[in-house]
Amino acid sequence: MTTAQRTAELTGQMIIAGDHVTGTGTAVHAVNPATDEPLGPAYAHGGADHVARAAAAAAAAFSAYRGTSSENRAAFLTTIADHLDSARDDLVERAVAETGLPGARLTGEVGRTSGQLRLFASVLREGSWHGARIDQAQPDRTPLPRADIRQRTIPLGPVAVFGASNFPLAFSVAGGDTASALAAGCPVVVKAHDAHPGTAELVGRLITAAVQDTGMPAGTFSLLYGEGRDLGIALVTDPRIKAVGFTGSRSGGRALVHAAAARPEPIPVYAEMSSINPVYLLPGALRARAADLGRAFVGSLTMGAGQFCTNPGLVIAVDGPDLDVFVAAASETLAGMAAPPMLTPDIARSYADGVEKFTAAAEIVARGRDTDGPNACRSAVFTTDADVFLDSEVLQQEIFGASSLVVRCANAAQLREVTTRLEGQLTATIHSEESDHAEAAALLELLELKAGRILFNGWPTGVEVGHAMVHGGPHPATSDSRTTSVGSLAIERFLRPVAYQDIPPALLPAPVADGNPERIWRRIDGELTRD
Amino acid sequence: MTTAQRTAELTGQMIIAGDHVTGTGTAVHAVNPATDEPLGPAYAHGGADHVARAAAAAAAAFSAYRGTSSENRAAFLTTIADHLDSARDDLVERAVAETGLPGARLTGEVGRTSGQLRLFASVLREGSWHGARIDQAQPDRTPLPRADIRQRTIPLGPVAVFGASNFPLAFSVAGGDTASALAAGCPVVVKAHDAHPGTAELVGRLITAAVQDTGMPAGTFSLLYGEGRDLGIALVTDPRIKAVGFTGSRSGGRALVHAAAARPEPIPVYAEMSSINPVYLLPGALRARAADLGRAFVGSLTMGAGQFCTNPGLVIAVDGPDLDVFVAAASETLAGMAAPPMLTPDIARSYADGVEKFTAAAEIVARGRDTDGPNACRSAVFTTDADVFLDSEVLQQEIFGASSLVVRCANAAQLREVTTRLEGQLTATIHSEESDHAEAAALLELLELKAGRILFNGWPTGVEVGHAMVHGGPHPATSDSRTTSVGSLAIERFLRPVAYQDIPPALLPAPVADGNPERIWRRIDGELTRD
Repeated sequence: MTTAQRTAELTGQMIIAGDHVTGTGTAVHAVNPATDEPLGPAYAHGGADHVARAAAAAAAAFSAYRGTSSENRAAFLTTIADHLDSARDDLVERAVAETGLPGARLTGEVGRTSGQLRLFASVLREGSWHGARIDQAQPDRTPLPRADIRQRTIPLGPVAVFGASNFPLAFSVAGGDTASALAAGCPVVVKAHDAHPGTAELVGRLITAAVQDTGMPAGTFSLLYGEGRDLGIALVTDPRIKAVGFTGSRSGGRALVHAAAARPEPIPVYAEMSSINPVYLLPGALRARAADLGRAFVGSLTMGAGQFCTNPGLVIAVDGPDLDVFVAAASETLAGMAAPPMLTPDIARSYADGVEKFTAAAEIVARGRDTDGPNACRSAVFTTDADVFLDSEVLQQEIFGASSLVVRCANAAQLREVTTRLEGQLTATIHSEESDHAEAAALLELLELKAGRILFNGWPTGVEVGHAMVHGGPHPATSDSRTTSVGSLAIERFLRPVAYQDIPPALLPAPVADGNPERIWRRIDGELTRD
Repeated sequence: MTTAQRTAELTGQMIIAGDHVTGTGTAVHAVNPATDEPLGPAYAHGGADHVARAAAAAAAAFSAYRGTSSENRAAFLTTIADHLDSARDDLVERAVAETGLPGARLTGEVGRTSGQLRLFASVLREGSWHGARIDQAQPDRTPLPRADIRQRTIPLGPVAVFGASNFPLAFSVAGGDTASALAAGCPVVVKAHDAHPGTAELVGRLITAAVQDTGMPAGTFSLLYGEGRDLGIALVTDPRIKAVGFTGSRSGGRALVHAAAARPEPIPVYAEMSSINPVYLLPGALRARAADLGRAFVGSLTMGAGQFCTNPGLVIAVDGPDLDVFVAAASETLAGMAAPPMLTPDIARSYADGVEKFTAAAEIVARGRDTDGPNACRSAVFTTDADVFLDSEVLQQEIFGASSLVVRCANAAQLREVTTRLEGQLTATIHSEESDHAEAAALLELLELKAGRILFNGWPTGVEVGHAMVHGGPHPATSDSRTTSVGSLAIERFLRPVAYQDIPPALLPAPVADGNPERIWRRIDGELTRD
């Protein structure tokens, strides 16, 4: 089956609690960024009434959905994962057409997305997510007896999820925010990203099929199309929505954060926004392998046309001949790199604007090959001195795409000074040898306060989905540094604790019931136990 | 030693990083609410320069303070607790004079406050607060090897704490917010409450002594005096402050939340604001013990002149003869209750205003005895029908003090309707017998979404300090329902996770080091273990 045939199958409709609904607003088409050709069908944007309908359905579904067992929700997540894997070839073909990203990368992304859903299924089955705690009664305590108090977590309520442009599967309709919210017991209303509406529709249908296959309430999932500042704000300010997950631009994220804070009942917004992901090249590492580092750096920089949240946009090192070797090797490698299409014409324009601004403010040392294709990302590497960097607002900003700035510091003290002046980051990377450990230790202490993840002798692109991952960090990397959007800890974003005092045994929720019927880890009188 | 003598010892000075500093603004005196007499000395308010100095000292102390071991911080907290216990009689005497609360209650509150500090010392020693997780490397994984990733929590940074008026010890200078922030590794800057500046100064000196005794950096603790909307806002908007703890009014809490959200770098605010703590009397319970319930209700209502965050301000039941018995017993008991002084003349005025507004909107059925003393809280109980309640904005608001409204519902369906219309609460209480369990189960499901703690067959005043307690709840009870301000879980408010990828063993933080040198619970490849 060709893309054209499958595209004919797409309906261009939203999905509201299992119903297929045609929008009433502006109709948009996806554009193949590699050819600038529009892709059918048209996707008509929804409006306030569609938001209200989806939110009402989510609120209506909440009671039954949160009442499902961990095992049933795990089966639901696993069914979504199975459906994604079964539809892999279709998903990849449409996503390639909509994003210009390579098929191999998108094939891997399907696996990452289904793997993420299966990880949360395992989290549900393991049971620690209940946060079960029991302080046993002490009826004979003096001067006052102690009551029996038990604590567990419950889901916050319906969650709004905003899909990102750069991961049309892993950070989109069935991405990490959706997976963690559904795992927590929260119905989800997704606002699809206009850059890949067809991929969004395909995934939305697969989730809807899983809702039906596993008997979940219809309002557990809805998928809307619309403008962020219009339908998106309506969604975030709907009183039935109780939390928000977002991955995108700083301005978009901040708009949602402010809208949520201004509600009569403010709600948490987990917005992942911008990060330039500093990479430190310490002297020992540069001495040992400057040219290798330069080549590997370009590999990380140009991956996916640099359209990663963790793209290495800043390299920081003490100036000297070894750094020159690094820059020369990077420049030589970059000069041979083709220019792939970016995700959308808008993103390609913003990238070109950013590179132009940087060219005026710093020294450009290398560019990738020019290409005939539209929306091409012709990669760029700049250098500047630390003094210039610290005085420049432009150079401290993110260019979304394959562009990076090498900051030459006069000495280790200036390198630390640059570090203390950085904004919050998703990642920071240190390349070091044993001889660098004293400096690395000093830097680590500063970087812990700046970033969610600190890597050694690697590259920040590539975010492992596991239990120990933190994909988060201080503002403006995210709007809430106390959490992560990737990895099993993400489930906690959508939960809150409730305590039960002297509750009759007949009414006890299973996670805190006597005899531990679910065999989960619980904290009893302060001690973790499975008894 | 008399209060007069000890008062002469008080200096009226702020404490900034161990230095005693006289404010430069308006001078305020505490007032003995039982006599309306001012108490010396004068406390001159601080200004923006004092905020800047305290915040700078806290930021300077942060690196060294967060670098202290769990054991050293536990010893610091225990030393504060010991100092509080040693100074108990002095603290109680001054606090009685400043608040009009009974000596026995304040004696208990000293123990609660020192006990809270010792609880967090035990949390530090137990070690789960590190949130340690290790995903081990899988160098042979295909298609890509898996890196070694380790996660632990680190403190957010300096924390601003706003003391509450109604618990001059347990929710003030050395209260729960201070204890949990210090435990987490965050320096603390306290804004004292003007209602008990002398108690605040005494406690501030004891903490300062503990800082010195245990060799903590001087900037670990500061104590300021000032207006909430002036010095308070300056504190919350200082870029060096990274989180806020507050207990007080809804308007005060919301002002801080908005100031924090408008910062270039928004920060979390944990504000505990208002709650009317609904109490449900189900038919079986009313049938079995209406008169007993009425008498016990008045005991909870009038405790501390009703100045508890968890005061039972709302009673909800199906109308009928049993409810009449409850109201009659409550009225009779209340009529004999003396009117104790409230915390401040302002609070007494607000209470009287609130009672006047309720008197116009509902039926007043009982009042406590009138008293000659100033600032007296003459307790009040009102009744109204559910229809009136649902239509009245006035009756759904909190009156801070011993006032409660009995809402008569036509039937169980209307009782649930009232419940779904309630705002967020710290607590909800259900009185039930076995015959009520079906109704209690239905109610429980609604109340879980409304309250942080749900009690059965008890009274909400009295908040146990333990591991399972939740003193929190949906807005407007608090600004962040995902947490608690009482109990060991509170430490998580001031922490965030950081991940380390392929970090050289020499640089590994101890909580995630190989061999588990701290013998703490850790999650390794998803499994909890102490190995």
